[in-house]
Order: sequence, then structure tokens, then C-alpha cells
Amino acid sequence: DLQRWAEADRAARPGRLDMLRERMAREGVDAYFGVRRENTRYLTGFELGEGEEKVAGNSGQFIVGRDDVVVFADSRYTAAAAEQCRGSRVEQVYNDIYARWPHMLASLGDVRRVAVEAGFVSHAMWQRLDDAAPNVELVSAEGWVEALRQVKEPAELERIAAACAVADAALGKLLPQIKPGVTEHELALALEWEMRTNGAEALAFDVACLAGPQAALPHGSPSDRKVKAGEVLLFDFGAQVAGYRSDMTRTLFVGEPDDKSLEIYEIVARAQQASFDALSHAVAGGSRPSGRAIHMLAKEVIVDAGYGDHFGHGLGHGIGLATHEMPGLGMSAPDVPLPSPTVFSVEPGIYLDGVTGVRIEDLVVFDAASRRLDRLTMFPREVTVVG
Amino acid sequence: DLQRWAEADRAARPGRLDMLRERMAREGVDAYFGVRRENTRYLTGFELGEGEEKVAGNSGQFIVGRDDVVVFADSRYTAAAAEQCRGSRVEQVYNDIYARWPHMLASLGDVRRVAVEAGFVSHAMWQRLDDAAPNVELVSAEGWVEALRQVKEPAELERIAAACAVADAALGKLLPQIKPGVTEHELALALEWEMRTNGAEALAFDVACLAGPQAALPHGSPSDRKVKAGEVLLFDFGAQVAGYRSDMTRTLFVGEPDDKSLEIYEIVARAQQASFDALSHAVAGGSRPSGRAIHMLAKEVIVDAGYGDHFGHGLGHGIGLATHEMPGLGMSAPDVPLPSPTVFSVEPGIYLDGVTGVRIEDLVVFDAASRRLDRLTMFPREVTVVG
Repeated sequence: DLQRWAEADRAARPGRLDMLRERMAREGVDAYFGVRRENTRYLTGFELGEGEEKVAGNSGQFIVGRDDVVVFADSRYTAAAAEQCRGSRVEQVYNDIYARWPHMLASLGDVRRVAVEAGFVSHAMWQRLDDAAPNVELVSAEGWVEALRQVKEPAELERIAAACAVADAALGKLLPQIKPGVTEHELALALEWEMRTNGAEALAFDVACLAGPQAALPHGSPSDRKVKAGEVLLFDFGAQVAGYRSDMTRTLFVGEPDDKSLEIYEIVARAQQASFDALSHAVAGGSRPSGRAIHMLAKEVIVDAGYGDHFGHGLGHGIGLATHEMPGLGMSAPDVPLPSPTVFSVEPGIYLDGVTGVRIEDLVVFDAASRRLDRLTMFPREVTVVG
Repeated sequence: DLQRWAEADRAARPGRLDMLRERMAREGVDAYFGVRRENTRYLTGFELGEGEEKVAGNSGQFIVGRDDVVVFADSRYTAAAAEQCRGSRVEQVYNDIYARWPHMLASLGDVRRVAVEAGFVSHAMWQRLDDAAPNVELVSAEGWVEALRQVKEPAELERIAAACAVADAALGKLLPQIKPGVTEHELALALEWEMRTNGAEALAFDVACLAGPQAALPHGSPSDRKVKAGEVLLFDFGAQVAGYRSDMTRTLFVGEPDDKSLEIYEIVARAQQASFDALSHAVAGGSRPSGRAIHMLAKEVIVDAGYGDHFGHGLGHGIGLATHEMPGLGMSAPDVPLPSPTVFSVEPGIYLDGVTGVRIEDLVVFDAASRRLDRLTMFPREVTVVG
């Protein structure tokens, strides 16, 4: 599969670049300078691990011209780049990108305006690029490649599904280990190990494992707190397969469920199901609702049940090379139709400060052309009692 | 220990802030705006994991004024920030930092010029801050806090030593698992697990485990390549304990060592020993050589042995909250005396493309005041045969 996916990416890259070049033409720029690691991989094939861009120097940074693509690599990365970036020109750099910047732009033709990933290039770098070629105008670009990335190709969907399958299996394998007395930290580590020794090349993000009142923290980290009978146990976790990621949350019950947690579980499940139903209905009719509309619909279920103040985050987010990407499903998302085909999470939650919390999160493929909504995370969503 | 270290940090923070304020006064700025996660922790106590800053929004960003420190935290982080940042004012933000920026500056007194971490703030953010308070001048600041961080306090040294001890023990435990047929990836994962289940809260960086010719890549990643008898096996790895990191490289021999690898091992060991000797000699006389001078001395040993073209990187780097920090030991390092007390790596290597590679890396504390050079990584440096 790895090789097939790499070939599919190679075949898809010219089309991705064409779409970026259309945007470049519309915005009146002659070149695009990128540094975000997900965009590097999407457009050039150059692979950097999460955070590796912080220690890779200029390696992985790239320029898309009207005809050519240039990828930078220092001596540590030239061999890998030559293999991964067929179709691009790999330029070896030695901390000398500024000195060579005017020449590199000239090698791409008549370049007067360059779009720069302003949300990811540091201000210091922007200044140095500006000083290095004073006659070239730098133009702030935000979200250009991210807008393309939200529409998923078949080989991208396959990898997200594969990452979901790794996560599903890992949680299944973990269940017998969940018993009162084991700590959040131990379970998080065991779940990570399960994924990384059974198909995940990396985690999508650090595993969250939160017991009892801790589950009320939408962003807590696992601690040495012990799992107790009669409490919930929330796992939020994801795997990475060939660059693509999964994300799933399950809230389990350890021993006899308490009434309050069961009550909010049922409401959260209803809010999620209402979202699925609305999405399925829309897609069956060939229409594309906005992410904001779906968020508001789920929110309404929770408000009607009397817990409106306890669901503070957005309903979901796109996922792919990054764990969080476009489209957004929330109040701050633009009120535009969802892209298609795309993958996003649907993750309503209710958090009762200091008491308990429930979140249920699944990934779905939304595909208007084939009129399908498919769930990718298969671990049961029903109330699950462990321990 | 965790609590003692947290208290030591709390006690040290006012002194660290005083030194930054001296720099601010010299540079004529009224406030300092920071975003780098290591600087946040050093100056305010706010803890973010590696890479977490990418998903934390403005949480952990901070402003140092002449009298006060303001730390931003969104709802996910306010509870932790209140606990960790005693002595600072925690301001809750909701994606509204630009709207509140003028008011926040005004709350710090008469602020006309603000230093900004230009190497870490994105250009887009810089522009938005500039637009939000047009009467306030933003001044590019690079390396101000990093210069302070290179001088280590006793409780910082303790934690680096503790991280080294975790790594030492982990490699010792791994040795019996190293046998022909096991893969680089399996060993890297086993070493990671050993560290993370025995004292490391995280890795300092992804474990490198490179067998045979792969060891010639100074920056390779572990693959499914199998370990073979008669080849070297290079491990480059580190642990993190209470925020502070270790870094060590050992090149082991699997089965009967081949002559070429043994020959270069001996040269690399000699280059490292020459560096230790020069540092010890200098420190015993109370003097502080430059990192560049020590690099050149090690390089000379390798050049004299005929392998000058096969040692392409710098001799070492400072370490602490970041794996790579100041001071640098290399040709591009400034020719100034080493700071003191400080911790850095000494890691000469010889890489024979496609054949074999050897690197030996240890951390040392260089302390001119107490006239001591102490090695922190204790795993034997002698030729070690395994398998």
C-alpha cells in the first residue's frame, strides 16, 4: 500500500500544482514561497515529521513558479528529497537561502511578486527575504494551499481510513487492561504503544486519557490519577498512516455508570446522530450544507436538553495531513457549503466542571458527488462498560 | 524532586526577568512580547509540550513589562496557567488578542516600543499587532532570552543530569535485545519505551537508530532495515525530565567489529578526548575558550587522521529546555568565550558514505567558577560489542 499511495501522490501532484497556479494567476503573483510542512508534502512530496521543520533549517521550504517547483534541502536531506520529490528541482542549501534568493527567483522566469505563507514564515525571515531582493514584492498568502487540501483524493481517503482502523483496533485491544487502579498515564501509554506497534507510523497527537471529573477538561493531559469504578473514562486519540491522520473520542464507563454521566451521554449521542442525519439527508439530495449550520443543529439538541452552557467548542474540524484543518464546523467557520469530498470530525460534548464529561467523536467522509456520507471510525458508539 | 524543581524555578524567575529587563533598558524598549515555548516556560512557568504551541492559539504567549508580566491563556489552559504562572498576571483570551492588544499594553504603563520575538512570531501576526496599535513601534528581538538561558542554574543542571541518567539506564536495558535480525525501528521503539516508562516525561527528540551504512547519515530515521553482524549500530537519543533534556550518541558494534569502523571509532574517540582535555585544562585555569576553538581542535584530530572531509557538522550545541540551544560549538559559532556554567554536547563523527559511520556524543557541564568540567552522560564510551 505504501508504494501505491506514494505513486498516487506523485500522479496527483501536477493537478494540485495547477490549482495553486490558478490561484496565483488570480492573485497576480509569479511565484509561491511555502514553509508549512503539510503544504510541502502535499505539493512536493518532501516528508518531514511533526515538529521536524523546527530543526530542519530551510529543508522542505519550496518555491512554486509558473513552470517549475524548487525544493530546498540541506546535506542531511538531499538523498531523501531526491527520492521523494521527483518532478521538483531539489536545491541544496547551506544556511545561504538569502544570498541565493534573487538568483533562485530569476531561475523561475520573470518574478516580480511572490506570495509567501505569512502565517508560517517568521517575521525575521520575511524581512530577510524582502531585503535580499528589494525589487520583488512579497505578498501575504494565507490558506491558499489549505483550501485545496480540504478536498480529498481517493488515495488520501484510503489513508485516513487506514489510520482510523489502526485506532479502532488499538482501543479494542486496550479494553481488558482498563480496571480500577490503573492510571490515566499508564492507559495512554499502552494505547499509544498498541497503535505504534500495529500500523501507526506516528500518533496524530498525544493521547488524551481522562478519568472522572478530568473528562470535563476538553484539553486535559493524562496524569497519575487512578481510574475509579463509577466514573467515565474519556479517550481522545489518533494514528498516522503514510502521513494521514485519524481522530476519535470515546467516553467509556468504568463499572456501574452514574446517572448524570449516562444522562449527558445520551444527549451527546443524540446531538451527534442529529448531525449525521442532517448531513446524510443533505448529501442524499446532492446538497452541501455549511459547517456552521451543522454545528448549530447539534448545539440546538444540547441547548434544548438544558446543557447549552456546557458545550463550548466547535462541533468538528477537517483532518488529513494535519489533525486540524479546513473545513471548520463551528460558529467561527464561514457560512459556505462544505467542500466535497472531504473528511471531518463530528464531536459534540458536554462538560460538567469538576463532576464529569462526555464527548463522542467520529470521522466521516462527506461526498456530495456520490451522494454518500460514510463513517470511518468504527469503534462502537453505544454505552460501553469496562472494568 | 518535581516539586523542589518547580519551587526553584519560581524562586529564580524574578532574577531571570531582571536580566531581561536590563537588556530591554539597553535596547530602549518598554515591553517584550514572546511566543517561543521554551522562553514562555523560562520566564513565566507556563508549560507547553513540544509542538503544542502550534495548536494552543495564543495560550502561552506573554508580555514582559517594566513591572508586570502578562501571560495569555484560553479556556483550555486557564486552570493550569493560574497554577504554573504564580507571579504573572494570566489574561484569558478568545482569539481576540489583536482587539485587546492596545489595552493590554496600556495596562503595563507608558509603552511606546515593544520588542517582539521576530524569529518565532509569524509575519501575519506581526502585521496584525502593528495594525492593532499603530502608535506603538515593534522592534525585532532575536536571541535575547536564549542568551540568558545558556547560563544554567543548579536546579536546571540537576534536571539535565536526571534526563541523562534515564537515557543511560535505558540503553543499558536495551543491550540484550540487540541481535542480528532485529530492525532499527524495533530497537528505536524499544529504547523509547524504556525511557518513557522509566522516568522520561517525553523524548528530547525522535530516537535515531541506524545500522551499518545508514550510520553514515548524520540525520537518518530508523527503518525496517535489519541489524547485521559485523556492522555498527548508532543510537542518538535523549530523554526529557521536568522540561529539561539530554542528548547522547553511542555507536555500538554488532558481532565482530570490522576494521574500518574500528579505525574511525578510535579517531572519533581521540577527537572527543582532545576536546575534553582542552576544556578541562582551560577550566582548571579559570579560562573560557570559545566554542569555535574547541570545534577546530577536534576537527584537527580528524583532519590529521585523513578524514577531514567526513566530519561535516559542528562539534556540539548547548542543551536545556530545547535540545539545540546556545552556545554553539562549530565554525559558525561566534568566537567568544563559552558562558558559564553551561551544558553542551561534544559529538565528533566520521561518516563514510554508503559504508559506515561513527559518532560519539556526550554532554558536559562547563563551570569556570568552580573550575570543573563534568560529564553527565555516563554510558561507557569504550568500544562496546553486542549481539
